Amino acid sequence: MERILATYRITAPESESRARAEALAAEQSVEMPLAAIGDERVLDEVVASVESIRPHAGCFDVVLGIAPSTTGGEPSQLMNMLFGNCSLQPEVELIDVRFPAAFTGRFPGPRFGLEGFRAATGVRDRPLTCTALKPQGSSVEHLAHLARAFALAGLDVIKDDHGIADQADHPFARRVPAVQRAIAEANRETGGNTLYAPTFSGGSRALADQARIASEHGVRLALIAPFLVGIPAFVDLQAQLGVPVMAHPAFAGASRIAPPVLLGTLLRLFGADAVIFPNHGGRFSYSRETCLDIARRAREPWEGVRPALPVPAGGMSVERVGEMVSGYGEDVMLLIGGGLLGARERLAEKSREFVRAVRGNGSPAR
Amino acid sequence: MERILATYRITAPESESRARAEALAAEQSVEMPLAAIGDERVLDEVVASVESIRPHAGCFDVVLGIAPSTTGGEPSQLMNMLFGNCSLQPEVELIDVRFPAAFTGRFPGPRFGLEGFRAATGVRDRPLTCTALKPQGSSVEHLAHLARAFALAGLDVIKDDHGIADQADHPFARRVPAVQRAIAEANRETGGNTLYAPTFSGGSRALADQARIASEHGVRLALIAPFLVGIPAFVDLQAQLGVPVMAHPAFAGASRIAPPVLLGTLLRLFGADAVIFPNHGGRFSYSRETCLDIARRAREPWEGVRPALPVPAGGMSVERVGEMVSGYGEDVMLLIGGGLLGARERLAEKSREFVRAVRGNGSPAR
Repeated sequence: MERILATYRITAPESESRARAEALAAEQSVEMPLAAIGDERVLDEVVASVESIRPHAGCFDVVLGIAPSTTGGEPSQLMNMLFGNCSLQPEVELIDVRFPAAFTGRFPGPRFGLEGFRAATGVRDRPLTCTALKPQGSSVEHLAHLARAFALAGLDVIKDDHGIADQADHPFARRVPAVQRAIAEANRETGGNTLYAPTFSGGSRALADQARIASEHGVRLALIAPFLVGIPAFVDLQAQLGVPVMAHPAFAGASRIAPPVLLGTLLRLFGADAVIFPNHGGRFSYSRETCLDIARRAREPWEGVRPALPVPAGGMSVERVGEMVSGYGEDVMLLIGGGLLGARERLAEKSREFVRAVRGNGSPAR
Repeated sequence: MERILATYRITAPESESRARAEALAAEQSVEMPLAAIGDERVLDEVVASVESIRPHAGCFDVVLGIAPSTTGGEPSQLMNMLFGNCSLQPEVELIDVRFPAAFTGRFPGPRFGLEGFRAATGVRDRPLTCTALKPQGSSVEHLAHLARAFALAGLDVIKDDHGIADQADHPFARRVPAVQRAIAEANRETGGNTLYAPTFSGGSRALADQARIASEHGVRLALIAPFLVGIPAFVDLQAQLGVPVMAHPAFAGASRIAPPVLLGTLLRLFGADAVIFPNHGGRFSYSRETCLDIARRAREPWEGVRPALPVPAGGMSVERVGEMVSGYGEDVMLLIGGGLLGARERLAEKSREFVRAVRGNGSPAR
């Protein structure tokens, strides 16, 4: 099979570029001196190849060809081959990765993807709207009450805050039925179709229990932080859940994998149907260019892999809806959490404002 | 319960320190404007507290008090509260964490720890020796052959290379019995007690299968990369395996958690019996001070949590044994992989040299 092409930016004098590139090729494959390898097949077919070295503004970019066989077709081992040991070398950054067409057959990619979110919400011709239940530590009753208010305002998706997991204040088994019921009631009143995406977290037994509870109560979306639960658990959970999943970037701060690669390309390959990322101009420092690149990679054509739904978030406000829609286009879900909750007694009004702003920006829908 | 005390170094002007500290306290707990929280109990008991702010060489250190209840007593949610969202803020680094005594009761810590490695190997009065089977892509027969040579030379522990997982060239189900058998035969010939630590990788089903195979073949140690398989899977696997586990730092490059905290404190809390880390002066750039701090944190007294065994590695050589032992003391396992394999036809001799160098540095043993 063709090689996986991984591009690394190495901050080191250009005079060392050849030696550094070859050392990296060994580190990310056989992890031993090539001179000590007697097996010609290993040298030819297993050791990563140095495909190119190009200077770049005082550092240099190295493209390695990584043998697909070394990944065992398994997600955590793929991450190991891409950025396992070199994650410990601060001068090395993973800035791009390209997979041979045959390789993506081994990974599911999104089961539902962008289209799955449109199908589940019934929203066709405008960006989707999303908010979050907060703060952690609230009573289940308060969270259900908030969910009802958001659903009555016509939000498309209400997700748990990423800090709301399976804690004693709001255990999954009690919170999810209560919130799901509150939203269902609101939907009946409005004729709307608001969906709830609860946080799935913990070890495999906890995740399996949560999947069972969610399914019993008709939950139709899920929120998961792949870097917290582990990438293999993230992939396995998709099959157990059978509903579209939103990936949350918490603990993704392996800051030396370029965010568009980690959040746009790799999370999509691993099956995220929607990818939440910190939008520029909020509480995080990603540039506009980085954010647009995450969205582009989530949606761009990729043979055999469905597009995922980009979800810019992290300190957004209703005032920015127009600008975000003109930047990201309509295939996007806008997530505003604190910006709605901050309105306090005006929460319902602010939520309706958000909904109207997005509906007004898209074609007239539902 | 008392708070978890997490220290963050923030690279920002000191004039902003109070505002930044309070923003971080919100980010790492309720993730919303405090002004929008009406529930006094949440403000008092859930929102992280700013315990102190201290200037530090052009930046400042903030100690947050994180409410243990927000972690749900679950490892991935603990990581979320410590470094979930702020992992995405490049100016924030987690440099220390202290747990209240009552908190560690919720986590196992090492089941065997440093003493478990001494009990399993029978080595009491000197550092332990360790090497790695490489390269990935080798035949199972070649790996078994290498294992035999290392065992005959008297190494204490032979681990898989971290890149050797469950690939077609050496599937776990075929490799582990073959290597285990080769080592058992060598042990019978020498009267020695060399142990094998295979790599466990993949999703929960794969890990369960591997645990079953390992147990059927009498495997008595395990090698796991917690940041690749996921921290919850790492914790769960310990209970399934029931043997001492070595933690490998691959993909731990969330470089803005200080390595002594991530590898020394947190991996120990999560149950690593031995912690592999890149030693100074090798292929990685950790300073001597950082490495000594990792070892100190792995072994220092911690009420209710067993000491873990530090395993400096990553480009070490037999020539450095004396220096490493004088730096780390005797409660250490020295891991040399490529440095032995690089000797090629002199591999057996080089391995015996390593064993002799370590035995000579400790008290006369077994």
